[in-house]
Amino acid sequence: MENFSSKLLQAAVEEFSQLPGIGKKTALRLVLHLLRQESGVVRRFSDAMLQLRENVVYCTSCHNISDRPLCDICSSPRRDASTICVVEDIRDVIAIENTGQYFGLYHVLGGIISPMDGIGPADLTIDALVQRVADNPGLDEVILALSTTMEGDTTNFYLYKRLKDFEIRISAIARGIAIGDELEYADEVTLGRSILHRTAYDKTRTG
Amino acid sequence: MENFSSKLLQAAVEEFSQLPGIGKKTALRLVLHLLRQESGVVRRFSDAMLQLRENVVYCTSCHNISDRPLCDICSSPRRDASTICVVEDIRDVIAIENTGQYFGLYHVLGGIISPMDGIGPADLTIDALVQRVADNPGLDEVILALSTTMEGDTTNFYLYKRLKDFEIRISAIARGIAIGDELEYADEVTLGRSILHRTAYDKTRTG
Repeated sequence: MENFSSKLLQAAVEEFSQLPGIGKKTALRLVLHLLRQESGVVRRFSDAMLQLRENVVYCTSCHNISDRPLCDICSSPRRDASTICVVEDIRDVIAIENTGQYFGLYHVLGGIISPMDGIGPADLTIDALVQRVADNPGLDEVILALSTTMEGDTTNFYLYKRLKDFEIRISAIARGIAIGDELEYADEVTLGRSILHRTAYDKTRTG
Repeated sequence: MENFSSKLLQAAVEEFSQLPGIGKKTALRLVLHLLRQESGVVRRFSDAMLQLRENVVYCTSCHNISDRPLCDICSSPRRDASTICVVEDIRDVIAIENTGQYFGLYHVLGGIISPMDGIGPADLTIDALVQRVADNPGLDEVILALSTTMEGDTTNFYLYKRLKDFEIRISAIARGIAIGDELEYADEVTLGRSILHRTAYDKTRTG
């Protein structure tokens, strides 16, 4: 038990140390940092989080975090509406957006199927995805971009079963050796798969 | 540049990533965690920090963070008022309190003398410390418990010069090999000092 000289300080440190990965010492460091800032800075900090929590909206189409009923990506005329990339949460949307390699739409599941954590298909936006596919005859492909874990694979398989009767392509992101990784340190499963799913050189292109 | 789908989300992530040691990815993780909590939890989190910043008081005697003009330690009749331990900031007070080995009072300097950072004696509570020593004839000892860095040593020396004419003992915390550390990995300066300032076994005590 820490010995704080101030109940207010203790309360603030306890709130911070509820955050994932933030221990008591880090929490105290963060709180003391904020305490040294101007009152307005702290007010802005507190306000930003509260505003987000009170006013956040989830896109009615892709379930991404949004400020409006239809998010910027779903409402953009420049996005390719014939492709939906299914991801676990909004961090994956940001990660894929940052690659600059994908121009389709998304579908945020809000988690993955995990019996251990009591998360079943009904807890995710899977029904909404199936409905979305059914409602969009112009759809060509659903890309499953979930974690390469047991839960990710389970969810992939479940989604495949739910979607396989539609006239669309269903694909999963490539698993393989990460760029810059050395072969000898790759795990056997990944290495095995990366040989099995090897990609052919396209001889019509150079480089 | 990250691609956030929500301005509110972006604002909250930016506020969190202003905190020391918190990058954009961690900030996003923390914000998404809070977003998943009940509205009341987020309100309590925001409020705790704001309350602290608006209502924090520094103890008029030791300059520790406090809820009242005289902090719990300074106003406790169980503390030994004949000893003052001088520390850099409130984290050091907490660290020393957690050892359970010290029962005197504190004096929080609010930093250490660091010409590189433009911090001189006038920026710290050194005058208040000197005044406090002058006003307390019952005082026996001032313990300097500052960092074992160049700046800490500079500050120790400056404090010694300011306090040496009072009828008190002035001491510094022991420097040496940390408990559990192996000698061969200790740096030479620490090892050298720990030999120079070796402590004699007290033969009247056993164990």
